[in-house]
Amino acid sequence: MTTTTDRPSRNGVDTATLFATLDAVRGQNEIAKFQFRASNSWVSGTHSRTTISGFHGAMQELEHAQPTVVDADHPAVLVGTDAAPTPVEYLLHAIAACLTAGIANIAAARGVTLTSVRSEVEGDIDLLGILGLSDGSVRNGYQQLRVTFHIAGEADEETLRGIVEQSRRRSAVYDALTNPTPVAIDVVVE
Amino acid sequence: MTTTTDRPSRNGVDTATLFATLDAVRGQNEIAKFQFRASNSWVSGTHSRTTISGFHGAMQELEHAQPTVVDADHPAVLVGTDAAPTPVEYLLHAIAACLTAGIANIAAARGVTLTSVRSEVEGDIDLLGILGLSDGSVRNGYQQLRVTFHIAGEADEETLRGIVEQSRRRSAVYDALTNPTPVAIDVVVE
Repeated sequence: MTTTTDRPSRNGVDTATLFATLDAVRGQNEIAKFQFRASNSWVSGTHSRTTISGFHGAMQELEHAQPTVVDADHPAVLVGTDAAPTPVEYLLHAIAACLTAGIANIAAARGVTLTSVRSEVEGDIDLLGILGLSDGSVRNGYQQLRVTFHIAGEADEETLRGIVEQSRRRSAVYDALTNPTPVAIDVVVE
Repeated sequence: MTTTTDRPSRNGVDTATLFATLDAVRGQNEIAKFQFRASNSWVSGTHSRTTISGFHGAMQELEHAQPTVVDADHPAVLVGTDAAPTPVEYLLHAIAACLTAGIANIAAARGVTLTSVRSEVEGDIDLLGILGLSDGSVRNGYQQLRVTFHIAGEADEETLRGIVEQSRRRSAVYDALTNPTPVAIDVVVE
């Protein structure tokens, strides 16, 4: 469950540790139960700021190597101050990053060396939904997301396509978006 | 469709422009058709980097005031280098930021001055799914998200709770997570 820098790795993935981690989880499923967390504070208008630091996993409380602070806002055309990307744009980052991490891991596990992975994500959204101007037929969220991968590596086309497909099948963010994820909202009035 | 700094605002929301924008969209629905975009590049292992800059909306190609670069990685316990939060943690940021932006806008539209909005988000995920160690009964994504808002403002408890509830009803990210969002993945082998 640790990484070292002096072991053989492929695609920057320490495959020995990856397989050891899989074996450890096979032996004790509780290791795989994680809880991720974020704290958000409103700044002004549509601008807010999130801090990501602690999480639970591998049967312990853990902290990232450094806390990350990330903002969100609406652009001027949506009456914001454009201090940061919109919340929905972070969904595009999340799906691309999740699929890409999976591609690197799966390629390493299959002994395939990658040279390049890039992706473009587009999300179509009709704001009649969130603006309350639809008769109910327009959803609030994205109508469609498209991810286009450009991948190069030391394997034939079929092998590389198979790695992307396996990453899709194992992706946490792909599942969270394409299938319903329960979201409970509690309110404490102070 | 522009913001100015010398107009009356509430909660940092330029309500006159907000209402004018709603009127403009009512008059021409095409204004509400947006496309958001992100470009991701693999760095190494589970580490990748996304740039968010251009988008389409209000019948024109637009750019954010500045491009945003945001990374993702896996923590050491998940065989990453912990250079940044995980992709799934950005989903927590997205839901908190989306609901909070809605709360500020809706409160302003209803003439309610807010003094503080904070939220904590927790997401439970069993990694047996993404590790391929489940018999299929464990999903890849979050099993449950919980958002807890702490809100204070110049209104009674029922009014403040009503603002949070209306934000939930109009939230793009809440919809994207709680309902299925189609995701198409194309692969170009280079």
